[in-house]
Amino acid sequence: MTDKPNYRVIGTRPVRPDGIDKVTGRAQYGADTRLPGMLRGYVLRSPHAHAKIRGIDTSKAEALPGVKAVMTAADFCAPGQTVDQLPDLSANLMAGTKALYRGHAVAAVAAITDEIARDAAALIEVNYEVLPPVLDVREAMLPGAPILHEAMRSRTPTGPGENPSNIVAHTLSAFGDADAALAECDVVVDIVTSTKMVHQGYIEPQAATATWNPDGQVVIWTCTQGSFPARQNCSQILGHPISKIKVIPTEIGGGFGGKIAVYLEPVAAVLARKTGKPVKLTMDRSDVFEGTGPTPGTSIRATLGATKDGKFKALKADMAYENGAYPGAAATYATMVAAACYDIEHVKIDAFDVVVNKPRTQDYRAPSSPAAAFAIEQLVDKAAEKLGMDPLKLRLANSSHEGSRGPMGMPFSRIGHAECVEAALDSPHYNAPLEGPNRGRGVASGFWFNVGLRSSVNVTVQPDGTVSLVEGSTDIGGTRASLAMQLAETIGVEYEDVKPAVVDTDAVGYNDVTAGSRVTFASGMAVVEAGRNLIKEMTARLATAWNVPADAISFSNGVFSTADGSKTGTFKQIAENVVGRGPGLTVSGSVNAGFLQGGGFAHHIVDVEVDPDTGKVQILRYTAVQDVGTAVHPSYVEGQLQGGAAQGIGWALNEEYYYDETGRMVNAGYLDYRIPTTLDVPMIDTILVEVPNPLHPYGVRGAGEPPIVPPLAAIANAVYRATGQRQTQLPMSPRRILETTGKLG
Amino acid sequence: MTDKPNYRVIGTRPVRPDGIDKVTGRAQYGADTRLPGMLRGYVLRSPHAHAKIRGIDTSKAEALPGVKAVMTAADFCAPGQTVDQLPDLSANLMAGTKALYRGHAVAAVAAITDEIARDAAALIEVNYEVLPPVLDVREAMLPGAPILHEAMRSRTPTGPGENPSNIVAHTLSAFGDADAALAECDVVVDIVTSTKMVHQGYIEPQAATATWNPDGQVVIWTCTQGSFPARQNCSQILGHPISKIKVIPTEIGGGFGGKIAVYLEPVAAVLARKTGKPVKLTMDRSDVFEGTGPTPGTSIRATLGATKDGKFKALKADMAYENGAYPGAAATYATMVAAACYDIEHVKIDAFDVVVNKPRTQDYRAPSSPAAAFAIEQLVDKAAEKLGMDPLKLRLANSSHEGSRGPMGMPFSRIGHAECVEAALDSPHYNAPLEGPNRGRGVASGFWFNVGLRSSVNVTVQPDGTVSLVEGSTDIGGTRASLAMQLAETIGVEYEDVKPAVVDTDAVGYNDVTAGSRVTFASGMAVVEAGRNLIKEMTARLATAWNVPADAISFSNGVFSTADGSKTGTFKQIAENVVGRGPGLTVSGSVNAGFLQGGGFAHHIVDVEVDPDTGKVQILRYTAVQDVGTAVHPSYVEGQLQGGAAQGIGWALNEEYYYDETGRMVNAGYLDYRIPTTLDVPMIDTILVEVPNPLHPYGVRGAGEPPIVPPLAAIANAVYRATGQRQTQLPMSPRRILETTGKLG
Repeated sequence: MTDKPNYRVIGTRPVRPDGIDKVTGRAQYGADTRLPGMLRGYVLRSPHAHAKIRGIDTSKAEALPGVKAVMTAADFCAPGQTVDQLPDLSANLMAGTKALYRGHAVAAVAAITDEIARDAAALIEVNYEVLPPVLDVREAMLPGAPILHEAMRSRTPTGPGENPSNIVAHTLSAFGDADAALAECDVVVDIVTSTKMVHQGYIEPQAATATWNPDGQVVIWTCTQGSFPARQNCSQILGHPISKIKVIPTEIGGGFGGKIAVYLEPVAAVLARKTGKPVKLTMDRSDVFEGTGPTPGTSIRATLGATKDGKFKALKADMAYENGAYPGAAATYATMVAAACYDIEHVKIDAFDVVVNKPRTQDYRAPSSPAAAFAIEQLVDKAAEKLGMDPLKLRLANSSHEGSRGPMGMPFSRIGHAECVEAALDSPHYNAPLEGPNRGRGVASGFWFNVGLRSSVNVTVQPDGTVSLVEGSTDIGGTRASLAMQLAETIGVEYEDVKPAVVDTDAVGYNDVTAGSRVTFASGMAVVEAGRNLIKEMTARLATAWNVPADAISFSNGVFSTADGSKTGTFKQIAENVVGRGPGLTVSGSVNAGFLQGGGFAHHIVDVEVDPDTGKVQILRYTAVQDVGTAVHPSYVEGQLQGGAAQGIGWALNEEYYYDETGRMVNAGYLDYRIPTTLDVPMIDTILVEVPNPLHPYGVRGAGEPPIVPPLAAIANAVYRATGQRQTQLPMSPRRILETTGKLG
Repeated sequence: MTDKPNYRVIGTRPVRPDGIDKVTGRAQYGADTRLPGMLRGYVLRSPHAHAKIRGIDTSKAEALPGVKAVMTAADFCAPGQTVDQLPDLSANLMAGTKALYRGHAVAAVAAITDEIARDAAALIEVNYEVLPPVLDVREAMLPGAPILHEAMRSRTPTGPGENPSNIVAHTLSAFGDADAALAECDVVVDIVTSTKMVHQGYIEPQAATATWNPDGQVVIWTCTQGSFPARQNCSQILGHPISKIKVIPTEIGGGFGGKIAVYLEPVAAVLARKTGKPVKLTMDRSDVFEGTGPTPGTSIRATLGATKDGKFKALKADMAYENGAYPGAAATYATMVAAACYDIEHVKIDAFDVVVNKPRTQDYRAPSSPAAAFAIEQLVDKAAEKLGMDPLKLRLANSSHEGSRGPMGMPFSRIGHAECVEAALDSPHYNAPLEGPNRGRGVASGFWFNVGLRSSVNVTVQPDGTVSLVEGSTDIGGTRASLAMQLAETIGVEYEDVKPAVVDTDAVGYNDVTAGSRVTFASGMAVVEAGRNLIKEMTARLATAWNVPADAISFSNGVFSTADGSKTGTFKQIAENVVGRGPGLTVSGSVNAGFLQGGGFAHHIVDVEVDPDTGKVQILRYTAVQDVGTAVHPSYVEGQLQGGAAQGIGWALNEEYYYDETGRMVNAGYLDYRIPTTLDVPMIDTILVEVPNPLHPYGVRGAGEPPIVPPLAAIANAVYRATGQRQTQLPMSPRRILETTGKLG
């Protein structure tokens, strides 16, 4: 973009500081924690999707030689509290009076070996009364469905419900009068979609290790997306002060939202307390599928109305999102993103958060948005077809822009959806013909808002004039590098002169989770603040050294100088010769960057070929366009776009939690739950559109989440073009394709 | 003391935060570092005290299966540099063309096991040309003595010497005219003493582990007294930027000055670079004795003159201190401390630093002072006897005081030597009769100056209103607690609400070594500064929250309040409710507390009984009096006094490097090098005199070093009283006692 300043470091592509450790296996991940005398823990999980727990007899397990402790939900109870009074946060970690999904933890063992711990778990006798499960989000909403939480009452726009219900909340998001506007539209299209629960599919399973000293000092090593929120959650679950808990974040092998919640950490801590030893717990892949938090399955009905000249007038939707076993807000999130790409006067979304007998759902990259876009972006495609318009030009004509209504009714600041669509229109991909039978091209847009939240960093001048950058945010996508680059830009040094480190919860100020596309954005703001504070402090010291007033010294382009130019020095010279030889200098930067901060838009183009005999959809070509604000490290940003698209492709074509009627996931392993391999995904082309975010000093926008939003709809639109059949259910697996299209050819 | 303020936290005796980890074995010490794929290193050491190295053939060692790398001094050379050009810092770690002491490292091996590394070291062929060693400090000063460094010329008060010499420096410290004054004195006493090299005797042998990534990132784990100086030294030796080196300080099992220098760290780093693997090196006890830095042996001639009414007029001394194999400044230090206890007009000290074929000496608790006091405090005792005065009253009459001449001729600030002597005079011990044959009571004073140097800390407010205290100083003597207490006092919270942590060199500002009695003093000053900065920042945030100007808010006794008292809140309330919910808040405190900062004085009283048949000296009763400024944590201060006294007792009675004529230490293990056991040392009574140090906001003085100064002389004076024979050579072992006294009885 033409309004992008000429940066010195930002926009370059240096090597990441943690790269060698990670590619050589030197980096320490969750399961790599090894402590002297460490015990191994094992979690016993419910084999039933819905069952009352009448009792748990741990005596045989406790008697097994080598077993050091057994715990149940009772160990989470405060004095006088019973297991059925445990809050959801705790109850999801260890079932009390009811197991609400298959895989729900019911007890845990600590023993001297993994094998003994597993053997002991098998000796725990749980007296279950098996109940019928409810697995489908719409069925769960029906009167007469099995009720998960007898005490739960729905929250609705008109107040709490009267009877037990699986509907957690009915959220209404309405602007204008959608029903009246629809009645006046020239063109009305509608769709009913459903998507299945899918998992984030991070490489590294959860792992946590804890020690608990007799004086109450607790240390937890875990591969978390947020050491500070993990500490907070452990504090709540354990009833133990946060100041007594230190969380040491290990490296993390992917998270995508799935490693925000704690699972093993409080269990390890309780077992450590009971045994006096370090206890390590790790999940295997089936534990990950069945015992952690995937993204909700959904059921969406939506209607879009437009004028005959292609102006969207009204959007109406009914969206039901699975929360899994405990209440969540997935559908509420959906109301904030579903209509965000377009400037539509009349919008009415009824959103339903619903509990079902499946794992408690969690965030997964742009949570709630892909399934919504799967419906809405197909509606746009249908409207374009009816209107006889190019689907990109239709989107461009209706695009959101600065000032139009964004999430929660707030006006958008400067955003770049239209620019993305324009870039797509101009792209080599969109302008290349797609020829051959059974082939089709699809496009779709997607949105995710940038969250801000809280970040803190420290910056220390080292005696050789370099600086250390201490951060508390887990580095998932290269944030050590992207933050170091922003600091280098701010203080006028080379990237190599900034040494970033991720430290534990005792060693830096509060940092929220690495999630919501926020770290490069908000921690970047903290870095810029720290850099400015550093220049200010250095100017003060320099004033003493130069014997001039501080306000006679200016700093620009990495150089300190007096007004008359008689004295000058680069940052590094001053840092080494003035600051480095004096007392240490550490400054911090802290921000609370709020919740909604601009927003990121993506637009994807995909060409597919559908095998008429097998129903297999082959991705022929894929281009991901995205407004990334300012690409701090373009390689990483491109990687985000490619990674998000690849995950979306898997979600679109293959991935699903496949349940039998008892509520058992029958594909809880990577042999059967099929994530894309390199053979399934072509090289994904990327086009970085840079519309600087006015809310960030360098124009940074979160870039990690939007790229997973368009693929579901884009591929569905492409399959429609290839086959003539709308795809309304995910995944578009070969079986589903053949079911909807018949044998092609 | 009456002028001590009424502190709330300072002066209490809380439990140390690191206590449980240390007593349960959970704390990680140097040798506890374990990394995946880690190799073990082994250092080959010279069997000769003085030898030319004509060549080193490592080929057989390299060919041994399991060996991954062999290094020699050549690996420390910069391009174009030869081993004989290496600076002392490097050459002491790995001999180049000359081995200068038995135990001098000549090569090192990294292999997959300890055993293979040792076997490989035995296969290294070093071609030595053995030279005659010189082991005695006075012999080394004589013309014709074997010369260690052909290129070295003495530094003398009149310029550099012309010929090769083992005398590193002749330092003259003169005030007034000592010779003329002595000629006029009524009473003149003199003494000639000699002391042997002794070791700090820390429990934990040196250990270091290093990784070296292909991008030049180096990480070193080590049990050092100073992670930042260790980083600096490694940077110099390795020719590698400090910003590429991270030193992670482990816990440390004692140092007493002996763990300031690096030994294994650069060797581990080079082997890690050569192998691409983590490499761990550990010393055994003989390596520690022969390969690290003990304290110098000395030879001192001193004369003290006084008027007949007991006023000291002149002190003259000739002091020769062993530097070991490479130049040091032990004797120069001695000039700063030898006369410090007394206000003497005329002083002349000729100090000689001398190299000998023994390990390069290093600091040991109050370096250079105990051996000087062994001479001077016996002179005072002799003078008291000649004058017929009580030795304490004589000291009191001549005591240094505020304004009198201190180290380097600088006037003392408020000090407490006289107060210590008065407290000794008033003590139950001094006033108790000592009866029985072969018994005697001795007293002696001692001095060590407080060094200041540089310290940095960070303080972070946690969401629950507690604070984290991040420090970079190794915690040897309880400084986590003593710093947390000073912060708690400053910000008005409970000790338990401050959580201290020692972090690595990337995560906090520069900190000098934990040595020189400086951490509780200087890092304490940094803590107080950080605390004050914190109150200031919190006041600013509170002003926003309360909607009043910042200067309308005052803070005292742990409470923020507006002038009209309408709004108030404790630190913890404000920290939790105002700060904890906002952006993070981290502040730092950094000081350069200079070099000389006040000084600490001790006075000890000891009763002994000398076995007339065996010559064994039994300590019957021991009282250590000391001006400790303000005792932040009295239990730890008492522990310092007791520990210093115990080490002094060992030095006085048993410890010595016992060499054969070839320069081999024949007692390089704790079976033969006898440090005191609980059977040798009675409970040491302590009397804490608190004369607040005006240079510290809470009056803190360094307390760790003075207590090792008096014991040598105090015991010698006691033995004199018991036997009638002056003890001028250490140790006063049974053999020595019998040699000087004959069979008593």
